[in-house]
Amino acid sequence: MAYLNENYLKLQAGYLFPEIARRVREFCESNPEAAKRLIRCGIGDVTEPLPGAAIEAMKRAVDKLGDRKTFRGYGPEQGYEFLRSTIAQKDYRDRKIDIADDEIFISDGSKCDCGFILDILGEQNKVAIPDPVYPVYVDTNVMAGHTGPARKDGSYEGIVYLPCTLENDFVPDPPKQHVDLVYLCFPNNPTGAVASRHQLRRWVDYVREHEALILFDAAYEAYISQPEIPHSIFEIEGARECAVELRSFSKNGGFTGVRCGFTVMPKTLLARTESGKKFPLHPLWQRRWSTKANSVSYPVQRGAEALYSPEGRKQVHVLIDHYLGNAKILRAACAKTGMEIHGGTNAPYLWVKTPAGLTSWEMFDRMLRELNVVITPGSGFGAQGEGFFRISAFNSRENSEEAARRLEEFR
Amino acid sequence: MAYLNENYLKLQAGYLFPEIARRVREFCESNPEAAKRLIRCGIGDVTEPLPGAAIEAMKRAVDKLGDRKTFRGYGPEQGYEFLRSTIAQKDYRDRKIDIADDEIFISDGSKCDCGFILDILGEQNKVAIPDPVYPVYVDTNVMAGHTGPARKDGSYEGIVYLPCTLENDFVPDPPKQHVDLVYLCFPNNPTGAVASRHQLRRWVDYVREHEALILFDAAYEAYISQPEIPHSIFEIEGARECAVELRSFSKNGGFTGVRCGFTVMPKTLLARTESGKKFPLHPLWQRRWSTKANSVSYPVQRGAEALYSPEGRKQVHVLIDHYLGNAKILRAACAKTGMEIHGGTNAPYLWVKTPAGLTSWEMFDRMLRELNVVITPGSGFGAQGEGFFRISAFNSRENSEEAARRLEEFR
Repeated sequence: MAYLNENYLKLQAGYLFPEIARRVREFCESNPEAAKRLIRCGIGDVTEPLPGAAIEAMKRAVDKLGDRKTFRGYGPEQGYEFLRSTIAQKDYRDRKIDIADDEIFISDGSKCDCGFILDILGEQNKVAIPDPVYPVYVDTNVMAGHTGPARKDGSYEGIVYLPCTLENDFVPDPPKQHVDLVYLCFPNNPTGAVASRHQLRRWVDYVREHEALILFDAAYEAYISQPEIPHSIFEIEGARECAVELRSFSKNGGFTGVRCGFTVMPKTLLARTESGKKFPLHPLWQRRWSTKANSVSYPVQRGAEALYSPEGRKQVHVLIDHYLGNAKILRAACAKTGMEIHGGTNAPYLWVKTPAGLTSWEMFDRMLRELNVVITPGSGFGAQGEGFFRISAFNSRENSEEAARRLEEFR
Repeated sequence: MAYLNENYLKLQAGYLFPEIARRVREFCESNPEAAKRLIRCGIGDVTEPLPGAAIEAMKRAVDKLGDRKTFRGYGPEQGYEFLRSTIAQKDYRDRKIDIADDEIFISDGSKCDCGFILDILGEQNKVAIPDPVYPVYVDTNVMAGHTGPARKDGSYEGIVYLPCTLENDFVPDPPKQHVDLVYLCFPNNPTGAVASRHQLRRWVDYVREHEALILFDAAYEAYISQPEIPHSIFEIEGARECAVELRSFSKNGGFTGVRCGFTVMPKTLLARTESGKKFPLHPLWQRRWSTKANSVSYPVQRGAEALYSPEGRKQVHVLIDHYLGNAKILRAACAKTGMEIHGGTNAPYLWVKTPAGLTSWEMFDRMLRELNVVITPGSGFGAQGEGFFRISAFNSRENSEEAARRLEEFR
């Protein structure tokens, strides 16, 4: 009989968001009246329509596919040059960061890239992952067999957890021990924390000393409002030798349902074999895409390109301002109740301490039942998230204001 | 230092199609005049514009994303219900094949699914792969560590190759030995061969006896013109207990650049752990999609759905007739030269014996230089492909007719 990947059997319960969806669905089915006034501040999904520039570009691209003279079939597996060069120029070289066009790899989202990247890495790597964290980093490592079994608290043996706590303002220090691979995400999901240049400098120093690798998730970089905060790990000198960066159009251009993101894989990155030989990772990543994918839908790539046009940029700014405006309203409401709030200024997420010693899921259930507001339980992001909850600012202004009003009523 | 996946270092040369692209590019750069009359019958990429029904559906869907009232963000990770149910009904249940909606998993193409599926399977599986074959089956197994190193002829230790030869009319028999996992592709890429109900019956009997698993690639099923040839492995009784089917909209709807396909994963499929416990594969596949993907672009899924509408179906038929018409013209031309031809009646590919004992790459280079026609060297698909070449019927009628004229001149 065919063998299955037994690592999947180590995975705990459902993936967080499907579990939330299940509880919400059950609540709505048994409370149809309350369901009508439900406000979702749970999953980090955008709510506002796509920027007009992207809409127009996608429709033009679809029309081109309908005409023999302009039809395109398979595109380059790593993404169209028009998009790779636009990204490299506008997100990096215009900001004095040295990234070549062919170091940009287009994907259908950074969630996908989180899994894909493990494909080219060895199973011997010692992996460090923040806690709390976007669950995909952990679960993809479990699936790839990089961990032992789960412990009672949901953590996995073999992973080096980096606690993100009140004490370190949710920005972990490099560990004392050696690791080979570190996941960092700033602005952070779920805590909304950002890392200063100095803090990232310490991480780059650590991984260079240990010849390790940083997987830097910058999916939320567009939300950075403080000018001194780095948008890219490559703003730190030496990062080209030790970091891969993941980015997404989901949270700036609202592409959660359109699906596009990218990985920056510098050609200067090396990794080793068991016997100690060193090879650049770039050709492996190039090959991964050639063999396993045919890149992203052509109209989608044209839509992503349009986000960089002058109108596209303005429209993206309006979206970011909208969501950060929601975050401000929600912060003010939480503050009135006396809750302790973090995040929400450089990120679309508020990270809030549950009042009165409630657990995260107790808070989730009470908010659902009493306020008909869906939040995300902090413990769903890791053991250190217990006692916190995440509120997403991805909403209409009206819903955010109403959620804020209800939050103020929470006793 | 971070470890890399050393299995990648076993991979031979470039993936076939990038290698062809490189040779063609070099030829065109040094022969700009010949480059102008180049006709590409190499890579299996469609040339005709998308069906109007898909164009209209995609544009409507894009417009919906531009309006707050109809905006959609993240869709279900396994694909939208509207598409899953349409596929299950129209491709399967309408043909009296018992497949449930939630056994359909939407992806961005069956090339991608070929890699993804190995994610949920164990590394202990003994894998059987036809030769010649679509290179992705082999290369994804190499990357996953399911093979030993490459031999001189490009084959890999550890894989059980199933020779597809003139003697068996390119449809291999089940092997004498035990295997756990078998790749089958009918209509076949590259040989254009189809398997009869009886031949598939023998395979299903074999894998049931061995409690093995068939990965059945039916990406070209729309090209079947003989009514007695099965379109799906699930037409064979018992296949729900032993087969996964991969399908694509690339070759029927012309979606090579739009990107959409699907996997059929029956809930009745079991696989085992090392210790012999049996589990269904469906929940693992479900979890793979929940954790590692956010499904396919919404407009793309609407485009795929439209291929099943009455107009969409008519438009797809016109496309298939067009490409099969090309195949007929190319077959006739090869016949005139006295070349020995296979395929091209139930598939968009002709599989032709090279004349005068030329190797596949010699034939490739001569066709490129003398006729300015790009074909695919058979040896690129495996050792048994040596001495053959593939001509693709994916072209405009004009180009196919011109390629046919030139073929007749080949000496």
